[in-house]
Amino acid sequence: MQAEMAEQPERLAALVARADEIAAQVPRPAAGTAIVARGSSDHAGVYGRYLIELASGRPAGLAAPSLHTLYRAQVDYSGWLAVAVSQSGHTPEIVTTLERMQAAGAAGLAITNDGASPLAGAADATVALGVGEERAVPATKTVTATLAAFALVAAALGPAPFGADDLARLPGWVRGVLDDPAPAERVADALVGASRLLTVGRGLMFGAALEAALKLKETTMISAEGFSAADLRHGPIAVVEEGFPVLAFDAPGAAHDDMVALVADLRGRGATVRVVGADAGADVPMPADVPEALAPIVAVVRAQQVALALARRRGLDPDRPAGLSKVTAT
Amino acid sequence: MQAEMAEQPERLAALVARADEIAAQVPRPAAGTAIVARGSSDHAGVYGRYLIELASGRPAGLAAPSLHTLYRAQVDYSGWLAVAVSQSGHTPEIVTTLERMQAAGAAGLAITNDGASPLAGAADATVALGVGEERAVPATKTVTATLAAFALVAAALGPAPFGADDLARLPGWVRGVLDDPAPAERVADALVGASRLLTVGRGLMFGAALEAALKLKETTMISAEGFSAADLRHGPIAVVEEGFPVLAFDAPGAAHDDMVALVADLRGRGATVRVVGADAGADVPMPADVPEALAPIVAVVRAQQVALALARRRGLDPDRPAGLSKVTAT
Repeated sequence: MQAEMAEQPERLAALVARADEIAAQVPRPAAGTAIVARGSSDHAGVYGRYLIELASGRPAGLAAPSLHTLYRAQVDYSGWLAVAVSQSGHTPEIVTTLERMQAAGAAGLAITNDGASPLAGAADATVALGVGEERAVPATKTVTATLAAFALVAAALGPAPFGADDLARLPGWVRGVLDDPAPAERVADALVGASRLLTVGRGLMFGAALEAALKLKETTMISAEGFSAADLRHGPIAVVEEGFPVLAFDAPGAAHDDMVALVADLRGRGATVRVVGADAGADVPMPADVPEALAPIVAVVRAQQVALALARRRGLDPDRPAGLSKVTAT
Repeated sequence: MQAEMAEQPERLAALVARADEIAAQVPRPAAGTAIVARGSSDHAGVYGRYLIELASGRPAGLAAPSLHTLYRAQVDYSGWLAVAVSQSGHTPEIVTTLERMQAAGAAGLAITNDGASPLAGAADATVALGVGEERAVPATKTVTATLAAFALVAAALGPAPFGADDLARLPGWVRGVLDDPAPAERVADALVGASRLLTVGRGLMFGAALEAALKLKETTMISAEGFSAADLRHGPIAVVEEGFPVLAFDAPGAAHDDMVALVADLRGRGATVRVVGADAGADVPMPADVPEALAPIVAVVRAQQVALALARRRGLDPDRPAGLSKVTAT
């Protein structure tokens, strides 16, 4: 896991250098975009749906694969872009769902690390991540590459809330974070005895909060649940009592004020909130010049660092969590 | 909460009796359907998106309100049906998001308990639940009514996976469950010392698992997280260790075999799984003749029973959870 995390700057640099080649692959959605994914890929999809809806100017959202695999829904997907995401490209339900959507009229795009996988074979077009084999069960370099691929897909569809120069700087921001593991290790020190945790983000950062929770569950067995700030206020905040640990993901931009307000509210309820962000008081610093729309990619690397450090402190092998395998058949 | 739970059979009977009136309100989606909601209404929307995609034959999914409230996305919603759900009809972000979608071309439908609310005033058409004021903070009768409203909306859009006769029997199934609280109380007895819990469903039952987790969080402060069976296998299952409590929601139908397999897998990992379902061995029985597509409504009542009983055993006031209010401003 650590070795694959360390590859991320070079892998991201290689991916963003292929922006024009990737843009040429992306079909335009006339009616809407449906993203088909599970696990970490699904969290990348949560990020991607914001960017694709913003850039394409047509609605985007996440599909329910079981509509196709269990219920054999007869749905007209004409005018739709279907983006199916699987790092392995071997998850049967993702392949089946994309095939059914394409047969029903969708233009299909696969995002996968294996350009020779069944998913790539089934799709009308493929963005191959090209980050090399991922051996650790908790996905790291394939996740940040998938997030970056969604940014490239969005940029191909219309005006995206970041520039080409920002994409070029992304590998450097990630390298800067990887070269500074101490803040994440301090958070891990504080969480070593925790059995539960909330992670929270807002808007574009919501997907990063979900991915942080999953990475922590997979590697540390902590019951970490990810929320958007708005969803958290709609009930789940009731579980927060004195000392409840929270990991909050913040970035400069449209969601910032609301995150500051939420962190204050949580602290008022007694929660022990640690902030991953660019403000001066953040517990785990983020680069201040990364735009909000790319900050989730850097934030996910921060979450990887916390998960890795906490797994080690708990005496767990981060590469091989008990009871998980690399490809999930559902 | 208990009193409002007890009203559900009569409230549901009154609602399903209005099927024709409600059907006449529902605009047809030409391109797709977007559901706008938070909290319990969002979980009803997870259920509704399955039924609407199945019945309308066009894709349906859940909107990201912050695209509209934070990022002012410029999106063409022509050809889209936007279904905005809020029991109070007063949640500002739900109203704003629906207004923006309608201004961008969507046909808007509100589902709300208050037909004179700002949401109803903003929407092109409204399904008023008419279940009377809900005073307890944890939503119960408005949730089952919203679920039933989604079933009625779906039935208005095309062939739904249940019949009018099934809808007529729904109040009786709910009454049967309410008249049999002992199984839920036994589950509450077993959970009285738990600090974490997983709830799980599959396909149509996924929304019920999410709602069960939220109701337990709100009323009992247990860290309950809801999953689809497929998502659980994609990583989060790693947190399951010896004795980990799980509440599984099952029903006869397309998802049943996979739920049986998941429960066996979880028990093999040492989890203490309690099943809400219609099989003979279920811990919390469900009526055997309710179709899979309506079973989530009955299952949510089972979850309410568990939450209410567990709150009391923990010495908490289920009607007024600490730190929550009835209308959330985000």
